[in-house]
Amino acid sequence: MPVNDEPGMAHGTVAGIFNSAVAAWAIGAAWELGALDELNGARKLDAEDFAERLGLDPASTAGMFRALASVGVVTRDGATVTASRNFDEVFRTRSFFHWLSRGSAELFRQMPSIMRMENRTGAFYRRDPAAIAFACEEIDRVTYEPAFRAVLDGIDVGSGRIADLGCGAGGRLRDMLARCPRARGIGVDIAPAALASARAALNEAGLGDRVDLVEDDVRALAFRPEFADVEVITCFMMGHDLWPRAECAATLRRLREVFPAARRLVLGDATSTRHVPDAALPVFTLGFELAHDLMGTFIPARADWESLFGEGGWRLLRTHRLDIVVGEVIFELA
Amino acid sequence: MPVNDEPGMAHGTVAGIFNSAVAAWAIGAAWELGALDELNGARKLDAEDFAERLGLDPASTAGMFRALASVGVVTRDGATVTASRNFDEVFRTRSFFHWLSRGSAELFRQMPSIMRMENRTGAFYRRDPAAIAFACEEIDRVTYEPAFRAVLDGIDVGSGRIADLGCGAGGRLRDMLARCPRARGIGVDIAPAALASARAALNEAGLGDRVDLVEDDVRALAFRPEFADVEVITCFMMGHDLWPRAECAATLRRLREVFPAARRLVLGDATSTRHVPDAALPVFTLGFELAHDLMGTFIPARADWESLFGEGGWRLLRTHRLDIVVGEVIFELA
Ligand SMILES: C[S@@+](CC[C@H](N)C(=O)[O-])C[C@H]1O[C@@H](n2cnc3c(N)ncnc32)[C@H](O)[C@@H]1O
Ligand SMILES: C[S@@+](CC[C@H](N)C(=O)[O-])C[C@H]1O[C@@H](n2cnc3c(N)ncnc32)[C@H](O)[C@@H]1O
Repeated sequence: MPVNDEPGMAHGTVAGIFNSAVAAWAIGAAWELGALDELNGARKLDAEDFAERLGLDPASTAGMFRALASVGVVTRDGATVTASRNFDEVFRTRSFFHWLSRGSAELFRQMPSIMRMENRTGAFYRRDPAAIAFACEEIDRVTYEPAFRAVLDGIDVGSGRIADLGCGAGGRLRDMLARCPRARGIGVDIAPAALASARAALNEAGLGDRVDLVEDDVRALAFRPEFADVEVITCFMMGHDLWPRAECAATLRRLREVFPAARRLVLGDATSTRHVPDAALPVFTLGFELAHDLMGTFIPARADWESLFGEGGWRLLRTHRLDIVVGEVIFELA
Repeated sequence: MPVNDEPGMAHGTVAGIFNSAVAAWAIGAAWELGALDELNGARKLDAEDFAERLGLDPASTAGMFRALASVGVVTRDGATVTASRNFDEVFRTRSFFHWLSRGSAELFRQMPSIMRMENRTGAFYRRDPAAIAFACEEIDRVTYEPAFRAVLDGIDVGSGRIADLGCGAGGRLRDMLARCPRARGIGVDIAPAALASARAALNEAGLGDRVDLVEDDVRALAFRPEFADVEVITCFMMGHDLWPRAECAATLRRLREVFPAARRLVLGDATSTRHVPDAALPVFTLGFELAHDLMGTFIPARADWESLFGEGGWRLLRTHRLDIVVGEVIFELA
């Protein structure tokens, strides 16, 4: 097997594809371990000192930085690691890498088996819900959050109650309660691991006593006394899980019964974008869309949503098109 | 978050790193599903027809080819998929991608946790032994096999018995028995899943009745009656698992007792190469070395081995330096 070894081969070549795959794991790890934050601040760190301070295996730590160096995220000179040309963009997009390499690795690993129709029944795939919740908090920050804040400022929550559906690790509840100091919150999620992260995050932020967390399936929610005075419902990055169409319309209608006092539903989600040329796919799109194809989850287009709300018993006040990486949109409904 | 969307961005950019990581999984899947073989023959296939023939989910199949297209392995025009500039090299190196994305994904996914010293005890990592065995058969074919054949031809096995240590999916046993039609074989492996693959492969090749498969740890092997007349011992791509040094020397000595009639030991393995610049790492090296750092497995250098054999009770006849991707070497010992 001929081996290409001229310098700079790491990009645009097959070796570059291989090393990038290793680097994607290293980016997720370097973020979780705090290495990306240190490099973002100081632009430099000493790998041996970093391993020592954090109690990490020195050889693996050197290997992690080597993987980052192989694709231009850092350069290495002995143990000195310096931020390099791809660092800033990787720093900004690290949550997408983490979503891929930590949260969704097992789904992609199973590809050849779960692509077979005969294997696509029951709980046919696995992901890591706690890791997904961790990454989604930052994905939210770089996608929906700025626009969502503006929407929230326009709603005037006051001392009302807010329910966040598919609350994940609780970041949105934490931010909303911090912004609306008299409001109370409810988080609903189907994944116990996500709710455990949310509980920890909310307690840490001193907001534990203003929030109830409920383990339930949004597609089959029943009324609970604590839902009675919910005025605002938010639901981010999981609306597509409510489809197909008829089921989604039914769920939207049911939300009106389950939350009788709700005056607003704010729905933020990715929408289908199939028009990007294969050679020009930005960070995230390919992974996000393939993951949902593998899971058999339909990602509706913006028009699919807009034509559904009436049936679901909601009036569309405004559509905020963000279109950052995966056709992000926020619908404001009454 | 600014999004770079000029054409051709897929390489040498952060989007290229992300898409490459997705593509690495797609390469492993496309190999297992037979898509790479079809494209290698006909250079073209129809994705819808391919999905239909194999009973695959059509959306996921399109997504798999989209991932390959994002990094120049194929191009797509509607459902027509055509081999593109990176195809031939990916075809040649697909086993390394599979090793990474199918066999070792779980190890890399666990990085941030298993890098912590406090978590590095007991069985602290997981890989997929059956997938590793599958990939290693082809890795062997593109690395050791040609040189190994020449070595084997020089040994004259005749009607003797050959023991393959760490036999994995049994490919080497199958090839050796096909080449030496009067010989008998024994495969030893620690992983039941690998032995199950070996059993299936050997039966399929009509060699089942000429081979015994033994589940055991090579580091703690005890004599068995069927070991008595073994004349040739082979051990490929697992010699490094016998280290550290003192343990390896003890194991080599024990092999002489456990296989009293052995006149040759042929040992093929990767050896440490830490001199490649970060920006010029070829396919495999980075993943292989980081994986072994994560697992805490020392990869000895060629000189480490050469200085050990005397202690282990073996005489080095010849060193065959292959140096294909990860310092491959074959030692011929008597
Ligand atoms: C992608 S995460 C988004 C988390 C959070 N909403 C955010 O914006 O960061 C999706 C969350 O929805 C939850 N989820 C998915 N389907 C659900 C369902 N049917 N009922 C309740 N929660 C669900 C998942 O467990 C996960 O925590
Ligand atoms: C990388 S694979 C190589 C397989 C095969 N020798 C080849 O050349 O393709 C290593 C194999 O060694 C086995 N192995 C690793 N450590 C072992 C041990 N201590 N005893 C027996 N088998 C072992 C693994 O289960 C795996 O099947």
